[in-house]
Amino acid sequence: MKKLINAPQDLVRDSIAGLVLAHQDLLAVNDAPLYVYRKQAKQNRGALVSGGGSGHEPLHTGYVGPGMLDAACPGQVFTAPTPDQIAAAAQRVHAGKGVLMIVKNFGGDCATFQVASDMLEMDCAVLLVNDDVAVENSTHTTGRRGVAGTLVVEKMMGAAAEAGADLYECKALGARVNACTASMGVALTSCVVPEAAYPTFDIGPGEMEVGVGIHGEPGRYRRAVMSADDTVALLLEPVLNDLKLSAGRHVLLHVNGFGGTPLIELHLLNKIATHQLHAHGLNVTRWLVGNHTTSLEMAGASITVTALDDELTALWDAPVTTPSLRW
Amino acid sequence: MKKLINAPQDLVRDSIAGLVLAHQDLLAVNDAPLYVYRKQAKQNRGALVSGGGSGHEPLHTGYVGPGMLDAACPGQVFTAPTPDQIAAAAQRVHAGKGVLMIVKNFGGDCATFQVASDMLEMDCAVLLVNDDVAVENSTHTTGRRGVAGTLVVEKMMGAAAEAGADLYECKALGARVNACTASMGVALTSCVVPEAAYPTFDIGPGEMEVGVGIHGEPGRYRRAVMSADDTVALLLEPVLNDLKLSAGRHVLLHVNGFGGTPLIELHLLNKIATHQLHAHGLNVTRWLVGNHTTSLEMAGASITVTALDDELTALWDAPVTTPSLRW
Repeated sequence: MKKLINAPQDLVRDSIAGLVLAHQDLLAVNDAPLYVYRKQAKQNRGALVSGGGSGHEPLHTGYVGPGMLDAACPGQVFTAPTPDQIAAAAQRVHAGKGVLMIVKNFGGDCATFQVASDMLEMDCAVLLVNDDVAVENSTHTTGRRGVAGTLVVEKMMGAAAEAGADLYECKALGARVNACTASMGVALTSCVVPEAAYPTFDIGPGEMEVGVGIHGEPGRYRRAVMSADDTVALLLEPVLNDLKLSAGRHVLLHVNGFGGTPLIELHLLNKIATHQLHAHGLNVTRWLVGNHTTSLEMAGASITVTALDDELTALWDAPVTTPSLRW
Repeated sequence: MKKLINAPQDLVRDSIAGLVLAHQDLLAVNDAPLYVYRKQAKQNRGALVSGGGSGHEPLHTGYVGPGMLDAACPGQVFTAPTPDQIAAAAQRVHAGKGVLMIVKNFGGDCATFQVASDMLEMDCAVLLVNDDVAVENSTHTTGRRGVAGTLVVEKMMGAAAEAGADLYECKALGARVNACTASMGVALTSCVVPEAAYPTFDIGPGEMEVGVGIHGEPGRYRRAVMSADDTVALLLEPVLNDLKLSAGRHVLLHVNGFGGTPLIELHLLNKIATHQLHAHGLNVTRWLVGNHTTSLEMAGASITVTALDDELTALWDAPVTTPSLRW
């Protein structure tokens, strides 16, 4: 294993310190328990707290700031944060209308966020995201996994919270966005967890893992690598089967890299996916392309589609000022 | 070689189409000859055109937009664009006060941009960037290479051009920024050029290439991998020797990933570099961390330091609206 790190056990804490140094206009850090929160607090609205294992950067710490998350709680790599991190973050960012916790559906995260929610003597609730259509139940999950669609949920809820929505309005909106969002991914190489120091899975030089999870966990099946055209078709088919959208529907297309795939390939996938969605009768009106929900240095990509209406489009377009999403 | 592509010869054209689809509010594309240009033209100012081989995304196409470049001309992967691309782009974006071409110092790029400049019957000039302190002369270069510091030069000149600076004012400013900017990088793995389909260089499982170029070309030497602390010290020493800054000087620190190194590691390097620069008596006041000047999927990172004064700080802080740099 070759990585640009010091001791693996110090990686998360020191990396968070580097993130906050680079964005000290927006972010502050609480060292113990560890969480990142936005500096410019705004009162009289619901607050949004997310988090999960590290190794998916920029998710979630890179999405803290006006118009998106109020705080993010990073666990160790691919390990859920602890309840005390989450509870402390919620207490810090509470803004008068409750705290909503946005959780990717993985067993560890669900447990730890629920414990934190139960600990807190304030209005709070948990919203589960489960956009991954690849598998029902998997290595770390009962039910579908939460993957790159989480960013879409967080962006739209962040816009609503910024405009004054309370906890319950945010939760209803988040559930609606989650229900009209579907994702599926493919991996070409494995990630390497620093503490483990060896690849999470073996994969041959001509193989790809279809439906891979964001921790390198197995998906649907292993097969020979395909062209980009065929790979996109393979990913879009179950996504569209899940969403069952009528012709002419406006959609957001999010092409997400898992960390090791260069932007030149992600933009190619974006062109192909846009054309294939048009061929399916859908109207892509919003796009997001980049390495957003990653699995350390894993090569591969996922495609997320969210069905839009006027309200969701306006929430997507609303201003956002975070380290990794800004407009 | 595993990549998410179709035929290698179509990659650049189709990837550019995907980029422009995702950013059609900002960018337009000219298909033949191929270049990307900003949609909202602003008159009565110098215009900035850059370009070079593809495979370094988001450089340069991701930096086209208000406050930065007017156009970017992508060549094939690691291959200079042709003079007709550059000349056509310059003619399209000319805004009344001349066109400045920003060129990373590589032999092919220097030749092709100079030919384009000679072809054009308008006020135009070439600015060479040569921030890489690793080697004097190398595989593709006479003199020092132009690497991640190019982004800093482009950002500051873009702010000046947006404010109305003409070609000659932009060129003088660019030369000044280039002179106070120095970079050095290290690679842990090789990139794979799609057309070649095999790694550009061999590197052992415990080795790193110190002073690597952004095409995977050799740097200073090969050695055993080190801790992140020691790697940062190894990169900063020649950078600071080159810049010879007096104590208390304000600097911009740009930690750049080469494509295959995850953000969690880049933020760690940022923390370490910030602390080491402070220990050298320097005052880091601006930061940029991310995969900005890449070498396809190569793992590794570079560190760039730019000495700041009030004027350069203001130019850095000026608004910028491009796909990959926006504030």
